[in-house]
Amino acid sequence: MKKLLNNKAHYGEMKTKKTKTAPSVLFYCDSQTNSDLFYLGRIFIPDAFLAFTQRGKSYAVVSALEYGRTKEDSTFDEVLSLETVREQAAKALRRKHVETAHIVKYLAKIYEIPSFRLHPDTPASLVVGLQSAEVPFEVGEHPFFPESLVKTDEEAKAIAHANKISSAGIRAAIHALEDAKIKHGKLYLKDELLTSERMRMLIEVACLEAGGTGDCIAAGGNQACDPHCFGSGPLRPNELIIVDVFPRDKKSGYYGDMTRTFLKGRANEVQKEFVAVVKEAHKRAIDAVKPRIKASKVHAAAKDFFDERGCETGIEKGKHYGFFHSTGHGLGLGLHEPLRISQESTLTLKKGMVFTIEPGLYYPGLGGCRIEDVVQVTKEGSKLLSSLHYKWEIR
Amino acid sequence: MKKLLNNKAHYGEMKTKKTKTAPSVLFYCDSQTNSDLFYLGRIFIPDAFLAFTQRGKSYAVVSALEYGRTKEDSTFDEVLSLETVREQAAKALRRKHVETAHIVKYLAKIYEIPSFRLHPDTPASLVVGLQSAEVPFEVGEHPFFPESLVKTDEEAKAIAHANKISSAGIRAAIHALEDAKIKHGKLYLKDELLTSERMRMLIEVACLEAGGTGDCIAAGGNQACDPHCFGSGPLRPNELIIVDVFPRDKKSGYYGDMTRTFLKGRANEVQKEFVAVVKEAHKRAIDAVKPRIKASKVHAAAKDFFDERGCETGIEKGKHYGFFHSTGHGLGLGLHEPLRISQESTLTLKKGMVFTIEPGLYYPGLGGCRIEDVVQVTKEGSKLLSSLHYKWEIR
Repeated sequence: MKKLLNNKAHYGEMKTKKTKTAPSVLFYCDSQTNSDLFYLGRIFIPDAFLAFTQRGKSYAVVSALEYGRTKEDSTFDEVLSLETVREQAAKALRRKHVETAHIVKYLAKIYEIPSFRLHPDTPASLVVGLQSAEVPFEVGEHPFFPESLVKTDEEAKAIAHANKISSAGIRAAIHALEDAKIKHGKLYLKDELLTSERMRMLIEVACLEAGGTGDCIAAGGNQACDPHCFGSGPLRPNELIIVDVFPRDKKSGYYGDMTRTFLKGRANEVQKEFVAVVKEAHKRAIDAVKPRIKASKVHAAAKDFFDERGCETGIEKGKHYGFFHSTGHGLGLGLHEPLRISQESTLTLKKGMVFTIEPGLYYPGLGGCRIEDVVQVTKEGSKLLSSLHYKWEIR
Repeated sequence: MKKLLNNKAHYGEMKTKKTKTAPSVLFYCDSQTNSDLFYLGRIFIPDAFLAFTQRGKSYAVVSALEYGRTKEDSTFDEVLSLETVREQAAKALRRKHVETAHIVKYLAKIYEIPSFRLHPDTPASLVVGLQSAEVPFEVGEHPFFPESLVKTDEEAKAIAHANKISSAGIRAAIHALEDAKIKHGKLYLKDELLTSERMRMLIEVACLEAGGTGDCIAAGGNQACDPHCFGSGPLRPNELIIVDVFPRDKKSGYYGDMTRTFLKGRANEVQKEFVAVVKEAHKRAIDAVKPRIKASKVHAAAKDFFDERGCETGIEKGKHYGFFHSTGHGLGLGLHEPLRISQESTLTLKKGMVFTIEPGLYYPGLGGCRIEDVVQVTKEGSKLLSSLHYKWEIR
């Protein structure tokens, strides 16, 4: 228990100070998938529950199943028993059947909350429930807690730690490729076929052992041209293999996200040039990061370089090729936080913001290459929150 | 690729036939967390995307990042490019800035859909967007596809397979307890302290190796009295340890869910009686399962037995004790499907339904005990979709 209590103190520091004039927010979701709710309460609860704020204090309404540990481990200022609140609401509203919207109506009355600011991911069922129960609300936008995009030093450390989990995963992939033998155009590890699935399992086990979930991509050849294809079937020598590892630190809840592209065997000149171009775009994008510039300028640093080097982007038979995704996304308690380093982004970078830099090129026939690190905006530029070498050709 | 195509054919069979008169449903969410959307499209897409049905055909609107693999691997009848649709919507609606609600408005026009039935978890942001864009809709309820609660033979096999992953995880826990040595009131495995965290890692690695994610609980002593506490710190001899393993088969997307309660060392008479009572309640609940009876009767079979045996349920200082959760929940593509075996449930059981049976007792001081298996309702009773012995005292 001591450890948990320490954790609580630890997260307590990370918690954002809320002013007493902030509007009352309302959540009804689980805190494993909703990172804003986890930001508020710092506890993983797998089923949807109500949480709200009032005059700078945060409240959770949880069932008997979650009550004890929420009281003990979360950073909610007060934890209410769902069963008790439901009973009180039934009495107060003189209803036999009490739905979630009625509980909210009761809470609004008791806590004197004139109107809620709903999290944008609040389920439709509750939205129409609140409308029919005549509970006043407005719907917030992403980012719901804009201050959460700027990371404290404590949070930056937690993200850097999560990226250590990523690099443990990528190292497992490197070891597998180093140990693999090439036979008849396929890779064998300890005499068994090295498939994308097996590679991903090795990565995930390494991430688990380092304290994180181990979600990852290990896709070779043309499969890698679909940037979100996880990879399946045999990995092959002499072709590019994208390894993208995005674990969540189970303790802190923060994500890591790193990508390296490898080749087992011997790279040809085209592949060497291809990887060098992506590496340079990656460098140029990172070099462009500094406070007070537009996120779109960072994207342009990578995109313009690709254009300069004649790396075309387009679409053929419904399949995109070239550089067709954004250069990066916000990273923290969410894997894809609402901050985009893209052409369309209107965001201005601020000191403390954390995001990925991950330019990539994809050409069916040649394959895909993506190199990804995580940066935090500093006073004058940026610093890396991820660290692993860029050696990619594995003989 | 062949493997993926085979998968597609395989899921194709599992797909529910939709009649042409069914209302047009609308989703805007990711298909990793929303199991109804995965049910429709059988592909894991990590970011929110639009999907809808019209006259028995299903459509997905995905970005360039997901387009290729969605076209290749999903069971959607048609896959539309988000970028293309957005451009068309901008032209048709004469808008410069096109939001998701405008895209829906455009699709409704093109596909002649008079009104959508929204998934109940559709985000509030889209709900108010549709209202202000004057797109007619109603909000559906859980279960969104009621037919999905009745599982086909193919699906039952997939759930049974997911439970093999669960039992691989529980076996890893058994092996750890068998190999553990007792020293000074703690457990040591290979000379290192056996904590809940380490036990969970061993379970998760075993689940990963068996093809699943490895979410699990390994909680001993009083920690186990919070049924959703994952467990932390040293596991101890002579006290009850709840091991609950609920992995998702990465290939099929179906969940397993099994719980066993163990004790390393020597159980005293009270503990023996305690476990025997839970085991008998578990048996009585399973014996009660058959088609056309109320789910609440299955719950009563367990609860009444506990009451008979004097196992009180109540609340003290805000902490619940006794048997204070439902006897079971639906299981399938969702871990907690909207089917409850509880006192409040108004559901009547149908042949083919799949759910957990997991009575438990929790008394701070004595600890917690829960035994969980998965059953499918058959013509005359039920059959187990999970299988592992109930030996619990490990010397």
